[in-house]
Amino acid sequence: MSDQFTAQDHQFMQRALGLAAKGIYTTTPNPAVGCVLVNQGEIVGEGFHFKAGQPHAERMALAQAGDKAKGATAYVTLEPCAHYGRTPPCALGLIEAGVVKVIAAMQDPNPQVAGKGLTMLAEAGIESAVNLLNFSAEKLNRGFLKRMRQGVPFVQLKLAMSLDGRTAMASGESKWITGAQARSDVQKMRAKSSALLSTSATVLADDPSLNVRWEDFDDDLKKDYPKERVRQPIRVILDSQHRIQPTHRLFHTTSPVWLVSSQQRDLSTFPPFCEQIILPKENLLQALMVALGNRQINSLWVEAGANLAGNLIEQKLVDELIIYIAPKLLGDKARGLCQLPHLTQLSDAPLWQLNEFQQIGEDLKLIYTPKGF
Amino acid sequence: MSDQFTAQDHQFMQRALGLAAKGIYTTTPNPAVGCVLVNQGEIVGEGFHFKAGQPHAERMALAQAGDKAKGATAYVTLEPCAHYGRTPPCALGLIEAGVVKVIAAMQDPNPQVAGKGLTMLAEAGIESAVNLLNFSAEKLNRGFLKRMRQGVPFVQLKLAMSLDGRTAMASGESKWITGAQARSDVQKMRAKSSALLSTSATVLADDPSLNVRWEDFDDDLKKDYPKERVRQPIRVILDSQHRIQPTHRLFHTTSPVWLVSSQQRDLSTFPPFCEQIILPKENLLQALMVALGNRQINSLWVEAGANLAGNLIEQKLVDELIIYIAPKLLGDKARGLCQLPHLTQLSDAPLWQLNEFQQIGEDLKLIYTPKGF
Repeated sequence: MSDQFTAQDHQFMQRALGLAAKGIYTTTPNPAVGCVLVNQGEIVGEGFHFKAGQPHAERMALAQAGDKAKGATAYVTLEPCAHYGRTPPCALGLIEAGVVKVIAAMQDPNPQVAGKGLTMLAEAGIESAVNLLNFSAEKLNRGFLKRMRQGVPFVQLKLAMSLDGRTAMASGESKWITGAQARSDVQKMRAKSSALLSTSATVLADDPSLNVRWEDFDDDLKKDYPKERVRQPIRVILDSQHRIQPTHRLFHTTSPVWLVSSQQRDLSTFPPFCEQIILPKENLLQALMVALGNRQINSLWVEAGANLAGNLIEQKLVDELIIYIAPKLLGDKARGLCQLPHLTQLSDAPLWQLNEFQQIGEDLKLIYTPKGF
Repeated sequence: MSDQFTAQDHQFMQRALGLAAKGIYTTTPNPAVGCVLVNQGEIVGEGFHFKAGQPHAERMALAQAGDKAKGATAYVTLEPCAHYGRTPPCALGLIEAGVVKVIAAMQDPNPQVAGKGLTMLAEAGIESAVNLLNFSAEKLNRGFLKRMRQGVPFVQLKLAMSLDGRTAMASGESKWITGAQARSDVQKMRAKSSALLSTSATVLADDPSLNVRWEDFDDDLKKDYPKERVRQPIRVILDSQHRIQPTHRLFHTTSPVWLVSSQQRDLSTFPPFCEQIILPKENLLQALMVALGNRQINSLWVEAGANLAGNLIEQKLVDELIIYIAPKLLGDKARGLCQLPHLTQLSDAPLWQLNEFQQIGEDLKLIYTPKGF
C-alpha cells in the first residue's frame, strides 16, 4: 500500500509524529496524537493532543489554519475520531473546515472509532488513506493500543541489578545499586506511565514515594516538560494483608493510590485519593490487569521485588523487561532478581529478545520483549 | 611527542599493526609484531612474527625488501630486539640492511630489550622515534606486556549467564545457556589465550576438553587461521584433591595439562604432556599467577564456577571480565555467578567499567575492567 504515498507525505507524517510525541507524558488515558495541515505544499496548521479534556490534535491544527484549512490535506497520526466525547468528532471538524484529503498513520482500534472516522470522511466525499509510518504510530501509543485491543494495559517490568543479577545485599541494603543517571531515567519512564505497580512488601521495606520527581529529570526533559505540567501516575499497591498505613510516604503525593486486596478494608483514616480494588485471590494478577484496563490504565510500570517480578513473568503478563545493570558484583548471598519456583529445566526457561541497548552513566539499560512464550 | 609523526607515518604504522595482528593466535610466549619497510614512499617489504622460533617481523620484511631496504624507513609495532635469542637481534639486521630510520610504536618492556634496541640503532647512527599509535600497540600485546612488566599473565575471567545472573539450573544443568554463536566466540577467545584455567570441580561435573575446536570457529576465522596451524592452549587445572584422572577428556587433546595442587602426586598413568605445579596452599592463586608468569604464560583465560570466579575477583586477580548474557531468566533457585563471601556492604562491592559491548547472535557480550579496587 505504501507506494500510494509520496516522499512529502512521509515528511509531513513524520512531523505529525513528532508533534504527537509532545503529549506522551500527559494524554493518558487518551492516545498521543499529532496533526499537520498542508495546503499547496505549505504547512498551514499544526496541533497535538496535550491532555484529556483539552482539544484534539486536529482541532488545534484547524484553529491555527483558519481559512487556509479549506482545500488542505490533513496528516494525522491516528484515525480522526467519529464520536462525541468531551469534544465533538474530529472527522466532522475536518469536513466542516473544507479539508479535501486526510492521511492517517493508522486506524484507531478504539471500538468507538475503528474505521468510523474514515467512513464519515468518505461519506462527505473526502479522500482518505491510512497506514503511513504505521510502525512509528503504533510504537507511540503502545499502551493505549493494547488496552483498546485486549482490554489490559501494556506492562513494563523494571529491574535494577548488579552484573551478577542481584538487587540487594543479603541485609536488604539496596541504596543505590544503579547510578544517579539511571535513576533519573527511571523517573522519566515513570512519568510516561499511566500507573505504577508495587507491593506492600516494597512499601514496608523502603517507604518509597513512588511518584515522579521533576527535580530528578535530566535537563532536556525539564525543558520539554515543565514542572507545573507534571502528571503524577496512579500508584497501584498489592496489599493482601492490609499492611499499608496512611502514614506511608506514598500519601505525601496527592495522586491516586489504589490498594489491591481480596478483602474490604476501612479506609476512613486514609486520604480521599486512596481507593481499594477488591479482587478474588485466584488469578489475582490477571484480574488486576483487566480491572486496570477497565479503569483506563494504558501502561503499567512495575517496580517490585523478586516475588512479584517472578509471578508476572511466570504468568506471561510482562510486555517489556527494562533492566538497568550496574557495573558491580554482589556475590551469591545477595538477593536474586526473580523467583521462578516452577522452572526446573533449562529448556523451559522463558526466552526474551533484546530490543534496545543504552549506556546510561556507568550503567546499562537493556530492553527485552518476550519471545517464544 | 606525536607531532613528530606525519600522516604517512600513521598510515604505515597502522598497516604494521594490521600485520602484527595476524600473529595473535600463535606467537605466545612471544609478542605479536608487524613491520613495514618504506623506501621513497613505497612499501618495499612487510612482515609479521608468526610463532616462536620462526623469523621476527623485521627479518621477514628485510628478506622481502632485499636491496631496497637500503635507505628505507622501518615501521615496527614494538622496539626491535637487541639480544641473541633463537634468532639474532633484529636491530642488528636493520643496521646491516642499511635502513636509515626506525619508527617503533612502543618500547619493549622486556628487560632483555627495554631501550637497548633503540640504543643499538642510535649507536649505528640510525635515526629512531618511538610512541606512534602506542595505544593500539599496547592493546595488541596486553598479555606479553603485563608479563614483562609484572611477571604475571593478563587474566580474563569468562562468565556465561542468564539475564538474572545464573550459570546453571539448581540441578547443575547448564547445556546450553548461551547460543551457538557465543560459544563460537568463546572458541576464538580460547584460541587467543596462552593458557586456560579451570578447576577439577568443573572437570568432574562436565568432563570438558577445554581445547580449541577449529570446527566451531566462524567462517572468517577459519579462513584467517587454517586448521593445520591451530595452537592448543595449555590447560591449567586446580586440583587440590587429586581428583583429575587420565580418563578425563582433557587428555584427548595433546597439549600440556598442568595440575595444580599442594602435594606431589604420582603421574605415571598420565600422558607425558601432563605435569604438576606444586604450590603452598596459602595464597595459592597469587602464587599460581607468578608460576604461570615464570612459565611464560602471557594470557590466561578462566572458565570456572562461582567459587573460583569469586576467589579471583576477591583477590583482585582479574584484568578483564568477559560476560556472555543469554536472553533467559532462570530464577533464584538457579546457580549464582560468583561467591563473594566477604562482601556484606554495598559500598564495598567491586566496581567495574564497561569497555566493550557486542550483540552475538541472541546473546550479549560485555567486557568490563576493574575500577576502583
